Amino acid sequence: EIATSVAAQFQSRSLDGLRVVITAGPTREALDPVRYISNHSSGKMGFSIAAAAAEAGAITTVIAGPVHLSTPDSVHRIDVTSASEMCAATLSLIDDCDIFIATAAVADYRPVSSAEQKIKKTTDTLNITLIKNVDIVSTVAARDDSPFTVGFAAETQDVERYARDKMQRKKLDMIIANDVANSDIGFNSNDNAVTIFSKCGDSEAIAQTSKQQLGRLLIAKIATKVH
Amino acid sequence: EIATSVAAQFQSRSLDGLRVVITAGPTREALDPVRYISNHSSGKMGFSIAAAAAEAGAITTVIAGPVHLSTPDSVHRIDVTSASEMCAATLSLIDDCDIFIATAAVADYRPVSSAEQKIKKTTDTLNITLIKNVDIVSTVAARDDSPFTVGFAAETQDVERYARDKMQRKKLDMIIANDVANSDIGFNSNDNAVTIFSKCGDSEAIAQTSKQQLGRLLIAKIATKVH
Repeated sequence: EIATSVAAQFQSRSLDGLRVVITAGPTREALDPVRYISNHSSGKMGFSIAAAAAEAGAITTVIAGPVHLSTPDSVHRIDVTSASEMCAATLSLIDDCDIFIATAAVADYRPVSSAEQKIKKTTDTLNITLIKNVDIVSTVAARDDSPFTVGFAAETQDVERYARDKMQRKKLDMIIANDVANSDIGFNSNDNAVTIFSKCGDSEAIAQTSKQQLGRLLIAKIATKVH
Repeated sequence: EIATSVAAQFQSRSLDGLRVVITAGPTREALDPVRYISNHSSGKMGFSIAAAAAEAGAITTVIAGPVHLSTPDSVHRIDVTSASEMCAATLSLIDDCDIFIATAAVADYRPVSSAEQKIKKTTDTLNITLIKNVDIVSTVAARDDSPFTVGFAAETQDVERYARDKMQRKKLDMIIANDVANSDIGFNSNDNAVTIFSKCGDSEAIAQTSKQQLGRLLIAKIATKVH
């Protein structure tokens, strides 16, 4: 705790006064009052980036899906459940946002309708129809006055190709890719290893390190791009 | 902590030497490596019952889905993810089990197939077909040498009717019903209020109390029925 504070003292206030909004964790899409669809995500990566942004002097807000994490020092937190709620919270902040970092594992699809009462299991099979949720990060990036927008790509194959394609298609300024097929890193792990791809074409691999350290490295990298 | 230990000293060893198996928490049914279907369940009720069973002298095992809870003293724990894994773990213990308490919010259905790679969101809608999982508690209760079997019924309407029907249909010895439409209790709450229905026809309502206290009351009630 003390070591963390001391380290923070030495860190440059590279994002001093900038407003940073970060989404983190999974979302839950209700099928009925007891069942939902979700994604694997502990929220640790997003919370580490939020902590690093606040350390770097940014006015930092984390919009968090259901996670079991305490809020980092000096970070404002908005708790949400569904992708629609996360989208609404994001858009309410985006006019006053310099940097948007989308780490959340947002559900791509939600059930067409959520039953008000618990669905009774009377049949051997159940067909559910899902419709696409609004894509939060591309909605933000598509704005005329878009903030510097950073996305994540959690992939299980062809990581670089998917990541570069996603960055271009969604008009992101930067994308951070990790290979979730490697069970040592990502998801619930405390460590991660990523590759950063920038709009201007450069890329940088960061070897496996703690998510806390990675948060700082990513914020330092982002700071070099926004200035 | 001390108060808990002292209370335990005064409690009768009502289940001394009996073998109790408890399922707790949700299960997760994979759609692909990043997406899953699950149920709301913190696992607190099951872990409280496990703690109370161990206090009462039972040799206690909790089979836990993905939860953020520490294991109670003197309780053996088996961690699982899917309903199929929970079923397998249960059946591996059931020959040496005197009391089986099914508190887990087991997913009733799982996707027909789980994609090995992350599903790409290329379409506006997505249809998924789910098939029924094995019903763990009724599989246990249907055995010739079944243990004393206790189920839970989390309902949003007609609680008593559904609970009594479920007890009869699944051949349970006891069912514990709670109304999950009341957001003050159940799920992630530390409190719960339930009604206990027994095979012999009697019922007993327990007003809102802590899950810790409720665990003890339920174990005391179960002890009167197994002796």
